[in-house]
Amino acid sequence: MCATCGCGHTHAHEVITLEQKVLAKNDELAALNRTFLEMNEITAINLMSSPGAGKTTLLERTIRELSGKIAVIEGDQETQLDAERIRSTGCPVVQINTGAGCHLDAAMLRDAIDRLQPERRALLFVENVGNLVCPALFDLGERGRVVVISVTEGTDKPLKYPYMFAAADLVVVNKVDLMPYVDFDLGACRAHVASVNPKAEVLALSATRGDNLNSWYDWLAAA
Amino acid sequence: MCATCGCGHTHAHEVITLEQKVLAKNDELAALNRTFLEMNEITAINLMSSPGAGKTTLLERTIRELSGKIAVIEGDQETQLDAERIRSTGCPVVQINTGAGCHLDAAMLRDAIDRLQPERRALLFVENVGNLVCPALFDLGERGRVVVISVTEGTDKPLKYPYMFAAADLVVVNKVDLMPYVDFDLGACRAHVASVNPKAEVLALSATRGDNLNSWYDWLAAA
Repeated sequence: MCATCGCGHTHAHEVITLEQKVLAKNDELAALNRTFLEMNEITAINLMSSPGAGKTTLLERTIRELSGKIAVIEGDQETQLDAERIRSTGCPVVQINTGAGCHLDAAMLRDAIDRLQPERRALLFVENVGNLVCPALFDLGERGRVVVISVTEGTDKPLKYPYMFAAADLVVVNKVDLMPYVDFDLGACRAHVASVNPKAEVLALSATRGDNLNSWYDWLAAA
Repeated sequence: MCATCGCGHTHAHEVITLEQKVLAKNDELAALNRTFLEMNEITAINLMSSPGAGKTTLLERTIRELSGKIAVIEGDQETQLDAERIRSTGCPVVQINTGAGCHLDAAMLRDAIDRLQPERRALLFVENVGNLVCPALFDLGERGRVVVISVTEGTDKPLKYPYMFAAADLVVVNKVDLMPYVDFDLGACRAHVASVNPKAEVLALSATRGDNLNSWYDWLAAA
């Protein structure tokens, strides 16, 4: 029944009220995660993107090239494929499968942290479900939010998916090795990011070829 | 308050119940759309993909190369950018902006059809919000469902986002012009699609360079 008026139908108001409650509950749990992570000096980075933008490839290379304690939590609707890729680097990893779900939430992160038991002072990467829409709304308690886009996706994505870019601390423009073969305008993309989020940094790099990864490592060190 | 037990908290059960109601209501409206479209002999094709897979580029080329009555409904969180691209081909188009929403639903399609007034016997393309997760759950009343992926997104997407591929009548593998520059295995991708949806056809093409578009046009003619 409708929680608002008691009738038998679902109203938009009921949906909106429930969504607000879900987000409020998530924010409470995210605050607990944030406190736990800060007490243990764990730097958690929430990596978000469309499917196939190169999050896992960026993580594989980062783990191989950075010294220090790193741990990873992988989010996907199905499969252990990304966790297997991370595990083959020797890095501790836990996979979350969301089933029909479209994003990670703070409760899922808490459960994954319980399973992973990351070390004190670790750098903890959380690779969200590939989705440029829904993960933007769910705080996980992370220290930093990184949105990865690839040059093959086109220049206009920050304007068309503004909620995600507005929530980002850093925008990584990946696959610059493919720039010669696609129609992508990095200057215009930077301007689009700035128009929805003037505070976000933008780094253009290639996780496969290695262009400009030092800037990414510098950003992580300062996070 | 909780619709299930009357307490002040949100329970998973409440969320699930409401989601079921939302989907049931959507299915009712989708059935009405389907009846309307069939009565008017309009062939509606729901195009779904990650952001930047090339849906709009495929539509631009299709409109230019196909004769006959075509109309387009564009879905994006924000901007009129895609509608402007379609309008510049001379094709009737309406843009839906979903705001924070992650998918089109049957009610949005009905409203857009009211605004667009597509001709009898038209081919009506509905370009969904770029999202490989949520649009899979929402029937719009369409005749056919097409999922577009690009070779830059990697081979494993049908396994990692099985709900979307399970719902597809056709999977278009776009951007085959970029095959020499990326690590993509078309045979493995076909096998992954077949593993989650044995009935789905798979067409590999390039909307920018024009490879294999005749197969796409043949599929549309038979839809």
